[in-house]
Amino acid sequence: MGDKLVLHEDPGSANCYKVRLTAAHAGVPIERRAYDIMKGETRTPEFLANVSANGRIPVLQVGDRFIAESNAICFYIAEGSPLMPADRGDRADMLHWLFWEQYQHEPNIATVRFWMRWVGIDRLTDLQRAQIPVKRRLGDEALKLMDDHLKDREWFVGDAMSLADICLFAYTHVADQADFDLALYPGVIEWMHRIMAQPLHIALDT
Amino acid sequence: MGDKLVLHEDPGSANCYKVRLTAAHAGVPIERRAYDIMKGETRTPEFLANVSANGRIPVLQVGDRFIAESNAICFYIAEGSPLMPADRGDRADMLHWLFWEQYQHEPNIATVRFWMRWVGIDRLTDLQRAQIPVKRRLGDEALKLMDDHLKDREWFVGDAMSLADICLFAYTHVADQADFDLALYPGVIEWMHRIMAQPLHIALDT
Repeated sequence: MGDKLVLHEDPGSANCYKVRLTAAHAGVPIERRAYDIMKGETRTPEFLANVSANGRIPVLQVGDRFIAESNAICFYIAEGSPLMPADRGDRADMLHWLFWEQYQHEPNIATVRFWMRWVGIDRLTDLQRAQIPVKRRLGDEALKLMDDHLKDREWFVGDAMSLADICLFAYTHVADQADFDLALYPGVIEWMHRIMAQPLHIALDT
Repeated sequence: MGDKLVLHEDPGSANCYKVRLTAAHAGVPIERRAYDIMKGETRTPEFLANVSANGRIPVLQVGDRFIAESNAICFYIAEGSPLMPADRGDRADMLHWLFWEQYQHEPNIATVRFWMRWVGIDRLTDLQRAQIPVKRRLGDEALKLMDDHLKDREWFVGDAMSLADICLFAYTHVADQADFDLALYPGVIEWMHRIMAQPLHIALDT
């Protein structure tokens, strides 16, 4: 990659952490630009015009291209690295987990964490508050599905750590901050320890 | 691809249609197996054990591999076809639209369509009914963002139709069935006509 990579991010977001963790494993240096989403810094006219019309982070700037959606960014960085399975079928299985994460994991676990830790329960709308029990149930179903999948395997796809593990790790390892009880999922805990034991691992607050 | 491709699907689902439309453009024959999700046919012990532990369709069977998540399946089929951009940055932009579709488009437009046309307004829970105005607003925001993006371009990524167009077309072209007013988005309508005019195009009820 000839162009410098600039990550537009909120440092507390695990969707942004995912990108930094991918870059750490792929050995790709990235420059960081911090925005505070709670202060609306990703919804300013400048951000919407110059970084992303969708007003969300992370966004990866590569030259004059701005790539949005955390898992698309991770895929971009991981191409050509050991995080990207060489087999076409394994790549599809890996992408399956990335889409599953954004559809069934993140909207439940990450959203409840965001509501509890950033917005605050007292400031939620009635509709948001009413959704918490459903999101809690669906989040537990997601963790259970991960635990079941890990019953007879060390990594989500194939025999080695891939981008699927990194993207799933991001919000799973902070699920306790949304009051999910990870002790119910011992396979998930062992898998998280395997990821954290990798030499190139970095923490969320790095 | 040496193995026969079998699509486990519900023929009314636009997530399944996406896969068939991708296969039509890629020139890949697929065999179809129909399930009725309203009768719980994807939650039977057999389906959960043999097809997908997640109990959802579409699932693409390739030999003894079962790939889930519609956009991961489409990516698998499209690899090596003209639907897959050759440039790494364009591929990332394309994947961005696929993730965006599953996060900001499908959960709003497809879910409201499903609730209105399959479940029926009278049978929704109070919580589901309360979510409709929010989903309607977010669905309109998604259509507006698409319309804005199409202001100065014919296709979502680069200069040719790609997998991004196919995956976005699937639920956009039936958004009126969820009472979204597509006439508000003339750029989207023109883009849909470009897609439907392609020689290899097939309809949802093919």
